[in-house]
Amino acid sequence: MEQQIITELKRLVGSDYVMEQLEDRICYSFDATFRDFPPDVVVKPGNVEEIAAIVKLAGKYRLPVTARGAATGLSGGAVPVQGGISLVLTRLNKILAIDTANRVAVVETGVIAEDFVNAVSQAGLFYPPDPGSIKTATIGGTIAECAGGPRGVKYGITRDYVLGLEVVLPDGRIVEVGNRFDSEMAGPDWGMLFVGSEGTLGIVTKAYLKLIDKPKAKQTLLAVFNSLDDAARTVSEMIASGTIPTTLEIMDNMTIRAVEDFLKVGLPVNAEAILLIEVDGSAKAIAKQAEHVIKVCRQCGATEMQVASTPEDMDKLWRARRAISPACGKINPTKISEDATVPRSQIPAMVRRLREIAQKYNLKMVIFGHAGDGNLHPNILSNKHDHAEMERVEQAVAELFKEALHLGGTLSGEHGIGYMKAPFLKWETGETGFAAGKKLKQVIDQQELLNPGKLFNV
Amino acid sequence: MEQQIITELKRLVGSDYVMEQLEDRICYSFDATFRDFPPDVVVKPGNVEEIAAIVKLAGKYRLPVTARGAATGLSGGAVPVQGGISLVLTRLNKILAIDTANRVAVVETGVIAEDFVNAVSQAGLFYPPDPGSIKTATIGGTIAECAGGPRGVKYGITRDYVLGLEVVLPDGRIVEVGNRFDSEMAGPDWGMLFVGSEGTLGIVTKAYLKLIDKPKAKQTLLAVFNSLDDAARTVSEMIASGTIPTTLEIMDNMTIRAVEDFLKVGLPVNAEAILLIEVDGSAKAIAKQAEHVIKVCRQCGATEMQVASTPEDMDKLWRARRAISPACGKINPTKISEDATVPRSQIPAMVRRLREIAQKYNLKMVIFGHAGDGNLHPNILSNKHDHAEMERVEQAVAELFKEALHLGGTLSGEHGIGYMKAPFLKWETGETGFAAGKKLKQVIDQQELLNPGKLFNV
Repeated sequence: MEQQIITELKRLVGSDYVMEQLEDRICYSFDATFRDFPPDVVVKPGNVEEIAAIVKLAGKYRLPVTARGAATGLSGGAVPVQGGISLVLTRLNKILAIDTANRVAVVETGVIAEDFVNAVSQAGLFYPPDPGSIKTATIGGTIAECAGGPRGVKYGITRDYVLGLEVVLPDGRIVEVGNRFDSEMAGPDWGMLFVGSEGTLGIVTKAYLKLIDKPKAKQTLLAVFNSLDDAARTVSEMIASGTIPTTLEIMDNMTIRAVEDFLKVGLPVNAEAILLIEVDGSAKAIAKQAEHVIKVCRQCGATEMQVASTPEDMDKLWRARRAISPACGKINPTKISEDATVPRSQIPAMVRRLREIAQKYNLKMVIFGHAGDGNLHPNILSNKHDHAEMERVEQAVAELFKEALHLGGTLSGEHGIGYMKAPFLKWETGETGFAAGKKLKQVIDQQELLNPGKLFNV
Repeated sequence: MEQQIITELKRLVGSDYVMEQLEDRICYSFDATFRDFPPDVVVKPGNVEEIAAIVKLAGKYRLPVTARGAATGLSGGAVPVQGGISLVLTRLNKILAIDTANRVAVVETGVIAEDFVNAVSQAGLFYPPDPGSIKTATIGGTIAECAGGPRGVKYGITRDYVLGLEVVLPDGRIVEVGNRFDSEMAGPDWGMLFVGSEGTLGIVTKAYLKLIDKPKAKQTLLAVFNSLDDAARTVSEMIASGTIPTTLEIMDNMTIRAVEDFLKVGLPVNAEAILLIEVDGSAKAIAKQAEHVIKVCRQCGATEMQVASTPEDMDKLWRARRAISPACGKINPTKISEDATVPRSQIPAMVRRLREIAQKYNLKMVIFGHAGDGNLHPNILSNKHDHAEMERVEQAVAELFKEALHLGGTLSGEHGIGYMKAPFLKWETGETGFAAGKKLKQVIDQQELLNPGKLFNV
């Protein structure tokens, strides 16, 4: 990279916040996917004005700019596939307001998601999105990928909580889009354009987020099944029965074994599948809901039901759920985590197809995920140095996306598109939808500076 | 209008569905606002392909196209201020699917909102948006203006229920945007661009709408106040106390008198204000909530609390609420209904300022609305033939918008912008936001065919 650009960047943000050495650039070359693309320079601005200035500078030199939070993404959204500037937003880490009267929080996008959720909880309210990476991920990352999490079944995903955003547009202008409170409505909601846009349309620097009532109590249940089909069927039956639990997570036998091996919490390793179910509400309401959940599980063939009665027991079960990723990572070094999502009623069909695909391509696949949401996480455990296997992985992934779309589903329930799914996006949008998206991208970002190689800019 | 165009239009949709006579055009020249703009021709297509063909034809002849549902709008969104084609969507009136397993409905946009809500209810689910015009308005109109209604306090507004849309773009292409079920998430949500866009970016022909659980029971309460300030303060106290009722409607003394005069249902005509409050949930939960509502009302100075115990009593109260518009219309022929909305905590301040404005400009103003949402409906009762009065109305309206924005609010909570508020939009968006909106409009609709004179196209 030209020294002139480095000098100008250092002048803009201070030389402590510009990193050009290879060892630094390598640290910012990857996320939770498996390929590396080092940026030409890493810049860590401290405020929105600096970001606007960096974006203008990038325009002048026609350098790609890829925004980055904590880089916990599972689709490669924050990875600078065409080099250029890695724009790290972690210094924008202030919670600016938690307005309990109007139930709105205002946060900078570099705030860690869990810090934000905890601050909201201390203020007596609730911010539901809870991606697996919540302890590390930034709010900006959850917006860029429209993250979900186990609670999505009942509470929806990030887009359901974004009211408005402050955005640095690709020409360096700073604009507020969307709304600042939940009954505001003046004109089309440009704000939603930026949710899930992976920093391709603007750099999101501040968010107005909707807060809701904190549930008074909760209860976690574990249902054990001799058959994965029965567990999958339980999910669709449960939703159809009119009871929407807070979470409805599925884990197949291979997942159960991996976690138990890793964590030793006493999971039923001989079960073909388990469902981890949480209900929330008033104490009376949850008792009633739990009773109903047990009834539906038993009707669908659950052989055993465990009710976690203490906070410690509940925590143990949720620790098990959160341990899936590291536990699987221990089995095989390369973990391809997908989140192809189908309408809830299609969960049993999708589970069957996933098993067929794993068998067909002779791959180790664990199946778990937010089943209540239709959002399954088939993870293929492989080794990126085994080229023959990686070719089979590629074919299997393409086939599972095709299957999800065939069942009326989508490429992504919460991980986003990134570089990993960009080649498949057209299957979902169709030619016309893709062309429309591309046209809009080109209009908003004429120089195609922001995060090239992602979404419609491929 | 050139006969050639009429002939082509008749060929496209059949001659029964093209109206060119003045008496017909006058019927399509207005909505629930007070100015008339006759279109050059009225066209009633029967399906999306016909709409695409009409839009292409309009492009060829550079004719404005303004979509129209039932024209119950309160901001003038469906009024063809620059003439051209009035595109009436009422023949697209099929409910295509109510998928209870996945909680999604698919409807054509000419379906009457109440017909849809009733069909969903018969299927055992719930679609919350309930604008005052629900018996007449079309689903397309509620999307175009992002309609709300009393239940917005608890359940949100139309944008919270739109998953995806089928849209005819200004160049005649048909595209599906957004999502088809609620955990789909692939790329930026273009769908939301069209919600509240008043047909300026595309003609929305089909919608995928989110459905939720039907509340098991409800209870309506009426709180009577000697002071409008106390009633307003009750609203913010109620929300701050952590109880979100389903509805929280305010009516000032002039509103109460107008409705009582019109309907004779026994409203307390000497009260300075009433709050109409509904709570819903399980039977037990509503008993508890009602108790809490009564406590907060009493603490804030309610002199009397009525609990509607029978469905007939509840219906009577809601009939009174729905009768406000016709009742006020009876007092004065020209009713300027605004929906400037403020954050809930600012309701008491906004109510005080509204009364000052009415006094300053010597105008008859009734104050009512969805106070729990921050969404007040100051209605100025006037006579459009009294020019001196109408000038004062204009000044008062500008001042009330300024005040709402000053309190952190918005021009519109649910009525949209239309021709009525288009001149003020820049106050809310700022120069940069307005320019961004204008640029996007120009990109999507290069010929500026769709609904000129609205939103960013002024």
